[in-house]
Amino acid sequence: MFPSKTESLQKDTPGAHDPWITRVRPKMTPPSLKDNTADAERLVKGLKTVLHEQNVVIALPLFNRLNSILRENHFRVDAVLFETGQTWHLIDILPPSENRPLYGLSLDLGTSTVVLQLHDLAGKTTLDEISFLNPQIDIGPDILTRIQSASEEGGLQNLRKKLIEEINRAIGRLSVSRGMTTDTIVGMSVAGNTTMTHFFLGLNPYWICREPYIPVVNKPGILRAEELGLAIHPRAPVMVFPNVGSYFGGDLIAGILASGMTQQEGVSMLVDVGTNAEVVLGNREWIMGCAGAAGPALEGGVAKMGMMAGPGAIDRVRIDPVSGDLTIRTIGGGRPIGICGSGLIDLVAQLYLAGIIDLRGKLVANSCGERLKEIDGIRYYVVAFSQESGTGKDLTLSQPDIDSLVRSKAAMYTILRTITRMVPISFQNIQRFYIAGTFGAYIDPRSAITVGMIPDLPLERYRSLGNTCLDGATKALLSRKSRDEVDRIRDGITYVELNVNQEFMNLFSAAKFIPHTDTFLFPSVKGQVGDIT
Amino acid sequence: MFPSKTESLQKDTPGAHDPWITRVRPKMTPPSLKDNTADAERLVKGLKTVLHEQNVVIALPLFNRLNSILRENHFRVDAVLFETGQTWHLIDILPPSENRPLYGLSLDLGTSTVVLQLHDLAGKTTLDEISFLNPQIDIGPDILTRIQSASEEGGLQNLRKKLIEEINRAIGRLSVSRGMTTDTIVGMSVAGNTTMTHFFLGLNPYWICREPYIPVVNKPGILRAEELGLAIHPRAPVMVFPNVGSYFGGDLIAGILASGMTQQEGVSMLVDVGTNAEVVLGNREWIMGCAGAAGPALEGGVAKMGMMAGPGAIDRVRIDPVSGDLTIRTIGGGRPIGICGSGLIDLVAQLYLAGIIDLRGKLVANSCGERLKEIDGIRYYVVAFSQESGTGKDLTLSQPDIDSLVRSKAAMYTILRTITRMVPISFQNIQRFYIAGTFGAYIDPRSAITVGMIPDLPLERYRSLGNTCLDGATKALLSRKSRDEVDRIRDGITYVELNVNQEFMNLFSAAKFIPHTDTFLFPSVKGQVGDIT
Repeated sequence: MFPSKTESLQKDTPGAHDPWITRVRPKMTPPSLKDNTADAERLVKGLKTVLHEQNVVIALPLFNRLNSILRENHFRVDAVLFETGQTWHLIDILPPSENRPLYGLSLDLGTSTVVLQLHDLAGKTTLDEISFLNPQIDIGPDILTRIQSASEEGGLQNLRKKLIEEINRAIGRLSVSRGMTTDTIVGMSVAGNTTMTHFFLGLNPYWICREPYIPVVNKPGILRAEELGLAIHPRAPVMVFPNVGSYFGGDLIAGILASGMTQQEGVSMLVDVGTNAEVVLGNREWIMGCAGAAGPALEGGVAKMGMMAGPGAIDRVRIDPVSGDLTIRTIGGGRPIGICGSGLIDLVAQLYLAGIIDLRGKLVANSCGERLKEIDGIRYYVVAFSQESGTGKDLTLSQPDIDSLVRSKAAMYTILRTITRMVPISFQNIQRFYIAGTFGAYIDPRSAITVGMIPDLPLERYRSLGNTCLDGATKALLSRKSRDEVDRIRDGITYVELNVNQEFMNLFSAAKFIPHTDTFLFPSVKGQVGDIT
Repeated sequence: MFPSKTESLQKDTPGAHDPWITRVRPKMTPPSLKDNTADAERLVKGLKTVLHEQNVVIALPLFNRLNSILRENHFRVDAVLFETGQTWHLIDILPPSENRPLYGLSLDLGTSTVVLQLHDLAGKTTLDEISFLNPQIDIGPDILTRIQSASEEGGLQNLRKKLIEEINRAIGRLSVSRGMTTDTIVGMSVAGNTTMTHFFLGLNPYWICREPYIPVVNKPGILRAEELGLAIHPRAPVMVFPNVGSYFGGDLIAGILASGMTQQEGVSMLVDVGTNAEVVLGNREWIMGCAGAAGPALEGGVAKMGMMAGPGAIDRVRIDPVSGDLTIRTIGGGRPIGICGSGLIDLVAQLYLAGIIDLRGKLVANSCGERLKEIDGIRYYVVAFSQESGTGKDLTLSQPDIDSLVRSKAAMYTILRTITRMVPISFQNIQRFYIAGTFGAYIDPRSAITVGMIPDLPLERYRSLGNTCLDGATKALLSRKSRDEVDRIRDGITYVELNVNQEFMNLFSAAKFIPHTDTFLFPSVKGQVGDIT
């Protein structure tokens, strides 16, 4: 099946050693009457020789440490620096004996979940990971409530403070558990959607959700930890991923970077299903991106028993086509307490293949057997009876839940079709189809094809990428080439606003069948159904 | 005679309008659904169009003001920026209605006296000047005591604090007297000797006065007001003049800039007599500089009645060659209370021309008349009798005072000869001879030639430049070309340590006569003496 998370991470870590945060030993000779160059310029000269670069900059607070550290160590010291725009900036200067590792952090700034990864900068190995609920959820579970709150007196400061404090606590926990001091963390990269990035920077996202949807900044660039109040080395660079607009954020740009699609000749498609369905199409020559609402139906909140992927969530369903017996698998292996997005797609695909729902997604009463319930005129399909479930109640899938999924999958497929028609390119010419996000990590593409959510391509073209946001941030942290690629990606994207016009609605209507009104688009599904009936 | 201070200032202010701190109105159109560029990037794009430059940078604290100020003013705003390294940095963003002037400060960071000048950046006019005693004098009148004190616990911080607080008070006084707010001061340039510059930056000058005499930094570059604790606009650039070494500071580089010598084809010599005699020789192709002890004899402290130039100081002396009558002029016109350096040179020259001292500088008893006094075997010449003086006592010049001046003038002349012999170039080929400093503002070159202190060149080649340190700082503040010239000057200087070897001592011995043992070097003096005898 799909490569596991760990495999994906290793693949994404570039082999070439081209760091933009590094430690070097400058070549210096002690001063003499014949060479009265000042300490700072002597160090700069020694660094230029080693770094083969024209510009090396030392900030004022470091000047005063030069006097003693250079002489105590007989002008044999280590310098920690970062590069931006062909200029190297001194982060710190250390005695040569202190051969302790230098660390970096990558941060996935999710609306719901924040993930922080610790890396050894020299070894380029991932050492630890910590994730926590975005503490802004206390203020508002959804992003719109938070934007609203940011406009109230002190609201923005409060949102930012909650977030930064929680990040700092996580950094503290990581440091304690590894027995290291936080000032050995000398770099960080941060990717999140445009609004979350604004909160992180303390910028008001007021105009992000109001026509014509304008962020305060597209390219925050590289800032210093002390400017942002982050509890790592005060002069550590913090690279904040850019955005293309209010609805095409740094998380998606990090995803594009993680996929490697902009390095390949063949055309790839990247789909990230979160709150929105974000779609990117392109290769090393061009990139096109669009975003549209599709996600909510696929994660907790819409389906009555819907839940986020987590312990007790049903993530796999099989229905025996002969006996009609239903088998479920839960995350963690315990009793089921709900169903996650990927489980839902699996379930609906299996229901369709078993003839329990028809091509319009309607429950076929005769095929349901004892699993059909009807309350207040609404039909329910029992996925797990009360005696099997972890809640003590029946876990059910309602007809409205199915209808909702059918609309979502139709929207997704229509978006994919619309964007390919714009280029134009046929699905068959797409060499790689990447599915990102937690959703992508669990989804079975076979089931997603069966319900008609994604194109009917050979399964080997599908790749799950796991947390592409975090992986992209890590890549940019560890490699200068990858970091520079970020701006190239951002500047190269043609962003397409999806116009929900008559043509879109026609495509959408045609997609509201399982797998589609045009079954020739899904030959593999036709075959499966044929096997059963 | 020499151009007055005001003339000199106007000459030094470049005519071409090439500011590196400026206000512009970016060309922007309001955002729309077709152009969703973020606020920051929209502003940057609008600025690039107007500034014709590739890089425009906005710091994080300014991002958050963009939201409201752009919309309240319908995307018609003024931007205040400064340039460095072909990149423009946003200082502030203002409503278009606020058409108030923008100010800049130039600062002469003297060991004894600090001078602050206020300029209108757009009009390039000097509006005000304020000077005050360097408050570090409380800690130590001389620089060595202060360096000593900087090594004590909290000493450096205390030295810096005293200085910055006094500068801030002066800025406050300037602002109040002109009815302006300090945040309208959006730029500053600072020139001082290497040690004073270190104190200003809070850097320990410990190794400046210890072999091999190494500063912490040669080129501090452009810093921000908030980094330095200066009470002007927090994001205002503060350009700090570089140094060539511990004994060739930013004050002298500012002097070279002020003289304009590095723009001329003909070779100029610049002499700045302060605590040290600093000498620069060069033209637009090359610059050579050296420094040597010579000054103390020429200012208050050595001659018993010696004092700094100030009210009551004798600055001009004439002795009638026929009657021997002595006429004096004092600064301010009141009764004499002492004699300043230029007055001392005038007096010794006149004493020599009147035959009251001989060519070895010894008082000739027969020629002194009633003005000769002898106490404890030491001879004194009475310059002003007690009834004429402002102190109620006789103002006298002792034989040791004269001996001291003769040694000083001999040292100065020897330095000038040594440096010209290094190039080699003859005095006659020096087109301009600039005398800088307070000393230079008052000195009569005719008298300085008579005592054999400076070469016997046509008087029109001599130029007094007044406070070249302040004028150079002002030039660098107001003109980008001048500011860039500063680094070119610094990097181009060949610094020569004067070796006090046998050759130097031979030249020195020969110079310890008035005007010189080789009278052919001073044909004009020979003529004068001839007139008298």
